[in-house]
Amino acid sequence: MLAMQDALTRLIEYWTRQGCLTVQPMNTEVGAGTLNPATFLRVLGPEPWRVAYVEPSVRPDDSRYGENPNRLQTHTQLQVILKPDPGDAQELYLGSLAALGIDVAAHDVRFVEDNWASPALGAWGLGWEVWLDGLEITQFTYFQQAGGLDLDPVSVEITYGIERIMMALQEVRHFKDITYAPGISYGEAFGQAEYEMSRYYLDDADVAANRRLLDEYAAEAQRMVDVGLPVPAHTYVLKSSHAFNVLDARGAVSTADRAAEFARMRRLAGDVARLWVARRAELDHPLGVSAPPAPATPQPAVEVTGDRARTLVFEIGTEEMPPAEARAACAYVRRAVAERLAATRLTHGEVRVAATPRRLIATVADVAAHEPDQVVTVRGPRASAAYDAAGQPTPALAGFARAQGVAVESVETAELNGVPHVVVRRHEAGGAAATVLAAALAPVVTGLRGARNMRWNDPRLSFIRPIRWLLALWGEQVVPVTVSALAAGRHTRLLRTAAEPVVPVPSAEEFAELIAVNGIVADADDRRDLVVTGAQDLVYPDGRIDVAAESGLIDQITYLVEQPTPLLGTFDEAHLELPEAVLTTVMRKHQRYLPVRDADGALLPQFVTVANGPVDVDRVRAGNEAVLRARFADAAFFYAADRRADPATLRARLARLTFTDRLGSMADRADRIAALAAALAAPLELSPADTAALRRAAPLVKFDLGAQLVTEMTSLAGEMARDYARHAGQPRDVATALYEVELPRHAGDAPPRTLPGALLSLADRLDLLAGLSATVGLPTGSSDPFAVRRAALGALAVHRAHPALGALSLTGALDEAAKLQPVEVPGPVRRDVADFLARRLEQVLTEEGHPVDRVRAVLPHADRPSRADHLLSELATLVEDESFRGVAAAIQRARRIVPEGTAAAYDPATLKEPAEVALHEAVVAVRADLDPDPDLAGFTRVAGRLVAPVDAFFADVFVMAEDPALRAARLGLLATVRDLGATLLDWPQLRL
Amino acid sequence: MLAMQDALTRLIEYWTRQGCLTVQPMNTEVGAGTLNPATFLRVLGPEPWRVAYVEPSVRPDDSRYGENPNRLQTHTQLQVILKPDPGDAQELYLGSLAALGIDVAAHDVRFVEDNWASPALGAWGLGWEVWLDGLEITQFTYFQQAGGLDLDPVSVEITYGIERIMMALQEVRHFKDITYAPGISYGEAFGQAEYEMSRYYLDDADVAANRRLLDEYAAEAQRMVDVGLPVPAHTYVLKSSHAFNVLDARGAVSTADRAAEFARMRRLAGDVARLWVARRAELDHPLGVSAPPAPATPQPAVEVTGDRARTLVFEIGTEEMPPAEARAACAYVRRAVAERLAATRLTHGEVRVAATPRRLIATVADVAAHEPDQVVTVRGPRASAAYDAAGQPTPALAGFARAQGVAVESVETAELNGVPHVVVRRHEAGGAAATVLAAALAPVVTGLRGARNMRWNDPRLSFIRPIRWLLALWGEQVVPVTVSALAAGRHTRLLRTAAEPVVPVPSAEEFAELIAVNGIVADADDRRDLVVTGAQDLVYPDGRIDVAAESGLIDQITYLVEQPTPLLGTFDEAHLELPEAVLTTVMRKHQRYLPVRDADGALLPQFVTVANGPVDVDRVRAGNEAVLRARFADAAFFYAADRRADPATLRARLARLTFTDRLGSMADRADRIAALAAALAAPLELSPADTAALRRAAPLVKFDLGAQLVTEMTSLAGEMARDYARHAGQPRDVATALYEVELPRHAGDAPPRTLPGALLSLADRLDLLAGLSATVGLPTGSSDPFAVRRAALGALAVHRAHPALGALSLTGALDEAAKLQPVEVPGPVRRDVADFLARRLEQVLTEEGHPVDRVRAVLPHADRPSRADHLLSELATLVEDESFRGVAAAIQRARRIVPEGTAAAYDPATLKEPAEVALHEAVVAVRADLDPDPDLAGFTRVAGRLVAPVDAFFADVFVMAEDPALRAARLGLLATVRDLGATLLDWPQLRL
Repeated sequence: MLAMQDALTRLIEYWTRQGCLTVQPMNTEVGAGTLNPATFLRVLGPEPWRVAYVEPSVRPDDSRYGENPNRLQTHTQLQVILKPDPGDAQELYLGSLAALGIDVAAHDVRFVEDNWASPALGAWGLGWEVWLDGLEITQFTYFQQAGGLDLDPVSVEITYGIERIMMALQEVRHFKDITYAPGISYGEAFGQAEYEMSRYYLDDADVAANRRLLDEYAAEAQRMVDVGLPVPAHTYVLKSSHAFNVLDARGAVSTADRAAEFARMRRLAGDVARLWVARRAELDHPLGVSAPPAPATPQPAVEVTGDRARTLVFEIGTEEMPPAEARAACAYVRRAVAERLAATRLTHGEVRVAATPRRLIATVADVAAHEPDQVVTVRGPRASAAYDAAGQPTPALAGFARAQGVAVESVETAELNGVPHVVVRRHEAGGAAATVLAAALAPVVTGLRGARNMRWNDPRLSFIRPIRWLLALWGEQVVPVTVSALAAGRHTRLLRTAAEPVVPVPSAEEFAELIAVNGIVADADDRRDLVVTGAQDLVYPDGRIDVAAESGLIDQITYLVEQPTPLLGTFDEAHLELPEAVLTTVMRKHQRYLPVRDADGALLPQFVTVANGPVDVDRVRAGNEAVLRARFADAAFFYAADRRADPATLRARLARLTFTDRLGSMADRADRIAALAAALAAPLELSPADTAALRRAAPLVKFDLGAQLVTEMTSLAGEMARDYARHAGQPRDVATALYEVELPRHAGDAPPRTLPGALLSLADRLDLLAGLSATVGLPTGSSDPFAVRRAALGALAVHRAHPALGALSLTGALDEAAKLQPVEVPGPVRRDVADFLARRLEQVLTEEGHPVDRVRAVLPHADRPSRADHLLSELATLVEDESFRGVAAAIQRARRIVPEGTAAAYDPATLKEPAEVALHEAVVAVRADLDPDPDLAGFTRVAGRLVAPVDAFFADVFVMAEDPALRAARLGLLATVRDLGATLLDWPQLRL
Repeated sequence: MLAMQDALTRLIEYWTRQGCLTVQPMNTEVGAGTLNPATFLRVLGPEPWRVAYVEPSVRPDDSRYGENPNRLQTHTQLQVILKPDPGDAQELYLGSLAALGIDVAAHDVRFVEDNWASPALGAWGLGWEVWLDGLEITQFTYFQQAGGLDLDPVSVEITYGIERIMMALQEVRHFKDITYAPGISYGEAFGQAEYEMSRYYLDDADVAANRRLLDEYAAEAQRMVDVGLPVPAHTYVLKSSHAFNVLDARGAVSTADRAAEFARMRRLAGDVARLWVARRAELDHPLGVSAPPAPATPQPAVEVTGDRARTLVFEIGTEEMPPAEARAACAYVRRAVAERLAATRLTHGEVRVAATPRRLIATVADVAAHEPDQVVTVRGPRASAAYDAAGQPTPALAGFARAQGVAVESVETAELNGVPHVVVRRHEAGGAAATVLAAALAPVVTGLRGARNMRWNDPRLSFIRPIRWLLALWGEQVVPVTVSALAAGRHTRLLRTAAEPVVPVPSAEEFAELIAVNGIVADADDRRDLVVTGAQDLVYPDGRIDVAAESGLIDQITYLVEQPTPLLGTFDEAHLELPEAVLTTVMRKHQRYLPVRDADGALLPQFVTVANGPVDVDRVRAGNEAVLRARFADAAFFYAADRRADPATLRARLARLTFTDRLGSMADRADRIAALAAALAAPLELSPADTAALRRAAPLVKFDLGAQLVTEMTSLAGEMARDYARHAGQPRDVATALYEVELPRHAGDAPPRTLPGALLSLADRLDLLAGLSATVGLPTGSSDPFAVRRAALGALAVHRAHPALGALSLTGALDEAAKLQPVEVPGPVRRDVADFLARRLEQVLTEEGHPVDRVRAVLPHADRPSRADHLLSELATLVEDESFRGVAAAIQRARRIVPEGTAAAYDPATLKEPAEVALHEAVVAVRADLDPDPDLAGFTRVAGRLVAPVDAFFADVFVMAEDPALRAARLGLLATVRDLGATLLDWPQLRL
């Protein structure tokens, strides 16, 4: 068995063989290997750097007295930095696993999107967590920024979580049982320190002393920045960071503290980074300056004979793309290839595209071998200016001929726009397919962009993940596309674990089959089918996968693997005692496992995971089962601990959770939600039961954010509130309200069922909208870190779901919410929020399939969305109603004629013509009969009586009479018609 | 070439193969690997522990901006702990060097005494520094105490200085040039940090902030002690230690601070250690309890036939003993073996002993094969009680016979002390040699003791270094000596680098030749000859070794090697520009090299080192030359830096050097010396030149203790003061005085030549005596950490050397010194010091060869030692003088008769007898003629006239007359004679 210390040695040896130097861990406490100056400082600037080192990482908040099987206040990271990105870091990484004795072909090793950011250090990167049979064993990041500075070149950062790897390799269930060295366990070597340091961090560290230490450290860091010494400054930034973490673990960080401290650290880290860069420049970069790879030299296409149209395959090979991004990129490639081909004169068949995590493939059938030749006519001077009276060429003609490189004699005359001109006709040969395609396809690559892009070793490219190879074949022929350092060839890459991972492709026509026989399922739909049918087969006959419910997850899985290999795993039935939400959250969110249910929909102690490629099924199953076991054990541990604390205690912990800098803690926010819900309820005449439930639920609202399980899995918020509240003896309706405050959690999620839940949910969302609009502002573009859009959609959904809330005005409620904020929410901001809500309502209703015109017609009721719903449903039938159509037409007709701003008032005495008098009388009668707050059907019934008089009016009366008084009266009459249904619909929007 | 990072890996791998686990460096700054809890805590208690780890060790005081070739604020230690001592740690260690690719047989690897203590941690151990071709590469310690607790079992601590080893292996001259990893140098990897952290520690660290940090850390450590958490408490002790070191490097530690801080750290470290031990006991020692080796089972000697006397060889094998200790142990073995043999009845020849660093050998020729048989007579009751009147045996006789196991009939009768008794005569066979010797020799081993003893893996033994094997042979026969776990055999050990390091010895007679042919020179005199003649041969004809001057060093060398192999090395002539004292100090003290001189005594750029055994001469020479080069470069660096600072600046640094807790800084002490010298000079009528020199020298006295070179090599104090003072333009006599204040530096060293120097030197020593006697007390036993004895001897030597000081009373001067102390020096303490001085004078004079009686006779003049000298020299001739002898006899005779306390007064009128009257008259005449402060010759001349009258008096007069008045007068007359020379000598002491 490989002992942990030997594993560390092997990894260090492996990486030193790859040219890394190795340094010692930082000699002050750090939370991660990234903070060691061998990373944080060395990734800055242009100097190359390769390093591998062990970093015991201290996270006071993870202290568990050594009791939790997976969580330690000090865990061991092995950190690797490759600067610049060598271009094959993933392959090097897989080599390191092999060095540990892991058979990467037998195991399921996957790169699952995971990005990293440390706002306090102004640092971030994109990359993956690496999974070994479902276990996250490594963080793999392309480091993009540190200390607020763009990193150029980009470094690859690989961080191994050693305890986890060892638990998996040694098949033990508690970190204490890891064989650390021959004959000595991890617990024996470090157990006492783990316990005692946990005691220190959680219970015994002196808060006042650590606060003073924090300030001393930060001040010393600032002094070192001031004297221009980045190395000691950095050391003190690290010390201050640790002191902060100690205070945090002791629960001694207030909202104000946290905000101020993060700002200070960010500023100091930025100063340190800038100083380091400047110092290295002063020293003239002692380690040299790393050069980016040279641009590829474009090769001329090999000319082929023959005119046969051939298939074009263009494969863009990448490192593992995030699923959603891969889908978007696929759509882009389809569009871009089609557009680029259209700009050539090559005839071609259909453009088909496919995407896997590692490749984007465009296949175009029947691409002509050549563009057709063409004759190009170049216009010269007018014939009259080209020849003099004697018919001799003028200097103008001579100049034209010379410019075109032809003899004067070969110039022809042609009539252009009816005027004779001299012209030169030039025969242009069409380009050969390979040459034309090379030029056409290059921009497809450079145009690739995702939601969040990164840089890698090729500084001229930017995409969601690195692009590593291009294959471009037209028939047998390589299309010589070059993009920066990449040159397309005929080699594709198979699974990394294939015997021969890079293979040549004979021809475009054989491409699809070649990768298919090598296991790669290029088409996403095919992969989805394999996932679904494979999973269902595995669980048949007793179980089933709820494909509809798991659709999103299945979509993800489809883009996590190139060769789906579903496996069935089981877990201990005892875990079924955990709340279902806990189990499914762990399975879906953390592990991308498909839950298995019986015929009644109840969970079975099984799961389906989908490995990538032909793995050793038993090993991979066992690995995944072990991971799930540990996860469930973790959850059970937290669950039990949470249940031991009563809700009020958990609620008190919210004071330690920041909401935002200016909007206070989560406790502050929960207080506001409670107050707002009460204010919204006041006019609503709730039942005594609802009143009581709301009154009991409000002070506990969001209390489960203080629970450990929710801290671990935030998506369980609400679910756990309900469970814990019930466990603590709260009535069922109170527990339900505490659950429902979190509903709806996402688009399509059910809204609260009960009124107390609905009020709390609405209050939650309105508080968020009011507070954030006044501080960070409403979201624009794609960035919406606080999920303000979702909050708006939620507020609308809640309102729409509860008829009892029909009378409640969202803008009114927003005003109430604004009053409770710790910051002012000015009137214009509130109006912006109202508009924002209306836009979201328009979007939702449209997406629900309502015709845009009707949606827009009811949008004035966005403030009471349930009213808009009602009107829409009436419209759905009324639009076919002749009477309604007549009313609508009448109103629209009136509106078209009456100038804007015309009041709905007139002197009836002025009216003379019978048709206008009849209309007047009809209007009077209708107005008398109309309900003051009519529904649309009722309105139509009454107003329908106007249709005939209106028609008669327009037939007989000339509105624009010369007599101004008469004209005014007639317009006033029509304006009255126009306004009759103005509180109901925005009538002009209706297209009938 | 082996890069540094690979060397670290190899060492860790090697030690993990030896069962060590490996841990990470401490995640807070530590000054040495010892402080890591993997050492400091784990060496405590009974649990076994083996660990190897790298520890970047931070010593702010060693900051040199990366400029010094050997000194870094952070250097890399590799620390190994073997607990319990495995018994062969030296061999394991040599294996680790081999793992680094070092051919230990080709190089000169030596274990040179070096002990280690950290008073602040209550920790100490005994061991060696390991030399590789003269370079100290490792500290090797048997750890005896930590946190004030005795360690049981004892741990072996091995600490490699990696940068040094790498510089040697890679043959580079500056740490920055070490190849740290392939293609990257140490300077490239760590140079900037080295510079910046040096800046921080030396220039920019905020003193006030670090002082606050120190207090916060210590307070937190105390709190953790109070809640019973040794691990976090230890962490904070380390942090406080580092903060203290930062303050120290910034020159911000006052005397009071230092004393208080050390006391606090010692207390906290002790608390931490006790807590840890208690906690491990509570946990029931999770790693088990290590058992000491079982005692060896004594084997019966194999009986041999034949009566031939044979040689006995008894070899006690040890690890490398300190030279002085080895000599003392050798003497002990000679005595002990002789005594033990004498207690047997074995006849034997001479006991000869020999000692090398690794063995003590007793050889006894002609040890009889058997003790002779003997007849033992057992006494029974008196014959009268044994037989009744009828001659029948009484019950008493029967009882006796039964007790002796004989028949009543076989009892004989014998006369004992003239009384007939019954007796039993028993024939006792003599023991066989092996059996008798086994019993006799065991106590020789258990009785071994040195000045400072240690424990190792055998808890029943204690000696200066571990005893590892016993060889005991009588002829061919093993003498079955057992001592604790050791059983003597016939195997001896040769040099560790021998092809076969452990070999059997056929017989005692062959022992000497066997080890001799294997290179081991057992006899110290033989080794000394090899050293001397070998060295002289090497430097012949141009150079020579000053054997007399280097005698002490040669004695040391003799006991550092078993097979002396002198080698000649050279160094750059340019270094001859350094002061000779610097060069010789480096060579002798640091390297144990013999300096080489030309015929005129001037240093040549050569040295002789003495390797142990048959090494690769060229390699070892090159290695030693490189070491010396680095040492000289270091010295030159300091020398140049010191010379750039003027003496006043260096003098100012003395404020940062503590003298003792209660006696202030070295600056305080230097101030006192200056003041005292001036006070002593005041009554002395110095020449104007001397007065001026003293006045200029006094404010600078001891200034060179602030110089870097003296900090490095304290024995250069004075030498450097002279050099630097001259360099700074001070007059020669001032420079001389500043040199001479340090004289004499040791017994036999020359005292100051000039009067200003003598006054400063005397003031120095008297200040020390006055201050220390009143605080830590005068030394008792062998411990004398402040070298108070040497100070006393120095004061006497200075006084004796300067006639101008003849009138100066040491006790008076001591009173002056006492007045200047910051503490009270009470009268009884001053009297104790005076007595202490007198005892030292007695010792010195005796050692100089003066007969004890004369020394004691002049000892009343200890207060003015030069007077004592004068009297002694007079005595040397006068003791042969009849007149003097007569006077002395007269005085002594008078003293014998006169009761003590009798006054020297009488009424002459009472005297009647002619002889007594004549004596009276002679006394009156002599007293009239005597010089008031006579010398001895003058006194004798005058007092000689009393001899005849005294003789006549005693012949004729009965002193003890019955008449009390007459008796009183006669006694008073004799008392007058008695007291005549009382100011000159303590006459009764003289044995003439």
